[in-house]
Amino acid sequence: MAGEVAIVGAGQSRFGVLREGMKALFTEAFFEAMDSVDKGLDVREIREAFVGSMAFGGGQLGNLAALMTEQVGLAHVPSRRVENACSSSSYALRDAWLAIRSGLVDVALVAGVEKMTDLPSDRQRYWLGVSGDTEWERLAGSTFSGLYALMASRHMHDYGTKREALAQVAVKNHRHGAHNPKAHFQREITLEDVLRAPMLAHPLTLYDSCPISDGATALLLASGEAAPRFTDTPVYVRASAAASEFLALHDREDITTVPGTVLAGREAFRQAGARPEDVDLAELHDAFTIGEIMALEDLGFCAKGEGGPWTLDGRTEIGGDVAVNTSGGLKAKGHPLGATGAGQVVEVFKQLRGDAEKERQVPGAEVALTHNVGGSGATIAVHIFSR
Amino acid sequence: MAGEVAIVGAGQSRFGVLREGMKALFTEAFFEAMDSVDKGLDVREIREAFVGSMAFGGGQLGNLAALMTEQVGLAHVPSRRVENACSSSSYALRDAWLAIRSGLVDVALVAGVEKMTDLPSDRQRYWLGVSGDTEWERLAGSTFSGLYALMASRHMHDYGTKREALAQVAVKNHRHGAHNPKAHFQREITLEDVLRAPMLAHPLTLYDSCPISDGATALLLASGEAAPRFTDTPVYVRASAAASEFLALHDREDITTVPGTVLAGREAFRQAGARPEDVDLAELHDAFTIGEIMALEDLGFCAKGEGGPWTLDGRTEIGGDVAVNTSGGLKAKGHPLGATGAGQVVEVFKQLRGDAEKERQVPGAEVALTHNVGGSGATIAVHIFSR
Repeated sequence: MAGEVAIVGAGQSRFGVLREGMKALFTEAFFEAMDSVDKGLDVREIREAFVGSMAFGGGQLGNLAALMTEQVGLAHVPSRRVENACSSSSYALRDAWLAIRSGLVDVALVAGVEKMTDLPSDRQRYWLGVSGDTEWERLAGSTFSGLYALMASRHMHDYGTKREALAQVAVKNHRHGAHNPKAHFQREITLEDVLRAPMLAHPLTLYDSCPISDGATALLLASGEAAPRFTDTPVYVRASAAASEFLALHDREDITTVPGTVLAGREAFRQAGARPEDVDLAELHDAFTIGEIMALEDLGFCAKGEGGPWTLDGRTEIGGDVAVNTSGGLKAKGHPLGATGAGQVVEVFKQLRGDAEKERQVPGAEVALTHNVGGSGATIAVHIFSR
Repeated sequence: MAGEVAIVGAGQSRFGVLREGMKALFTEAFFEAMDSVDKGLDVREIREAFVGSMAFGGGQLGNLAALMTEQVGLAHVPSRRVENACSSSSYALRDAWLAIRSGLVDVALVAGVEKMTDLPSDRQRYWLGVSGDTEWERLAGSTFSGLYALMASRHMHDYGTKREALAQVAVKNHRHGAHNPKAHFQREITLEDVLRAPMLAHPLTLYDSCPISDGATALLLASGEAAPRFTDTPVYVRASAAASEFLALHDREDITTVPGTVLAGREAFRQAGARPEDVDLAELHDAFTIGEIMALEDLGFCAKGEGGPWTLDGRTEIGGDVAVNTSGGLKAKGHPLGATGAGQVVEVFKQLRGDAEKERQVPGAEVALTHNVGGSGATIAVHIFSR
């Protein structure tokens, strides 16, 4: 349809500790996306490329986008890297969406790529820290585990959120990940596993945290006018909303909520003309388990303080009110920073076309939402999709 | 005018070895841009922010855009970092241009910021290298001086370009920089100075190279409909074109030309409905002196091989066929990587409104072009402007 933006192809590498480098991962994701285009798409039709990445590890900090796209036959296409830490490729999606909405671009590539595991762990720690407020948090010793632990503690204090509710997020997402052949962790875990895992930062244990993953993702976007040339079953982007926020927690009035999520969520539902109860599945940013619970509340799926009970009552499972993180989420599918946002959309693309593995396919899924967070809430993007 | 994109404000910090950090530089550029808006602009009107930066030095590699914008009252505005090495903020401009062309964004901020000089020189060298092809050039020992020296040598061999022509680029741009109070180098140099300077990579000496600079730049963009609310003399973006290219020189058929410049230039002139001879002033990417000569040719200002003679004949001086790098260029104004592209547009904004210092004001300037290059030609952006 005119004025619309459609996803006509989507692909990703496996997420995990992989032997491949960035070029191989990017190429794998790109060609899986190309192969997923029902009627085929000639690489020469791609007119603009937006590549989300932190350039984790620092091997290729400059011109990374052009280096990736030259591998796949896009050497002359305008390419740029979009960086907003863990939400990089969601902003790449937003920028491609704006480009297509301009009417000046017909077909665009959105991709994400990150190679995280070939650094020693002290260097990984440095690279994980540099998305926080360097001056006021990182150099004072804060880690993301620590910042999310503060949010979790306060949430438990203010709303009586149970420790088990946090753990249940991990249990649920691992259950989904067990059926996702691309997931970093493809095995189930129990509540006991989470509670007894090594402590990261009280009350969060190792299993409340996503892993450090390698991976790449790719989406092929087309204007509503162009989309029918590529597929009869596109997935439309019904809303693209984003908001930034103070990086440091001390600048926020209340750390049990992420204001950027509230703002972007409200705007996304306005654009889509939808309400939270219309959403069949949501990929929510669960870098730490408390993140999923706060996002449920901040996006209006449930009232403030109800995220914990909702989770324990199974209302975020497949068959519940809204199926959350059917891919396994960042928690089990993995979290290759810059690749994560577009990866959430890979899941949506499969789910809305009924192509997910049957154990995790949401029956009759029609409306989906993605929520991606950079750092501890600094850069948020919320997208809504339907067929 | 409807469908147009206008620049209604522009500002920059001084470029140079500065004591200020990124936040201070960004804030200075932002408020100079705000103050330059004739009828005033409320910060709450800014709906989207695009910040170009390499994040040189690595202190804030993630979420840098949000950290910058939160300083100036834009904490909830969607902000992202756009990275394409030295052309980062030109792609930020392109993405803001696309956003405004979508009709969904009325007013946007484009900014660039880089803090380069607080690293020891061996770390500076690392950070300068990481925009080249890591696998095939950087790790094999190539530097940008070396890569541009290869281009210069080949250009001299194929076209008989004189060593003095390269040097004359530096002499001319220093003459302009001497009258730019924001320039890194505000003093004239002689041909002898260039020829006798320490050798970087034959035939290029220290004075054929731009310096390592700190700095920040900011542009305020508005839709054609919104622009008259802010100023009666906006500068319109008549064309935005970009092209990427293989990073490594060995992948290009001919290293005396940058194919991305040819492609983007052709497309920019097509969009603007203009020809090279219509351009009154051009800010061309002179990270190394040979770069300006190749850009003159690749953009069609003169025939291939004529860039040297044009320079020696004074045809690129103020009063010549096209006034090139009236700001001083990267060579004398300075080159704070991510800030450079938007900085070229700061110069254009001043020139087209007749506000440049009188020694370097191009009389009756009506059409201007900017040409910005990431790395040794990997990511190119060309923009054309007029009142």
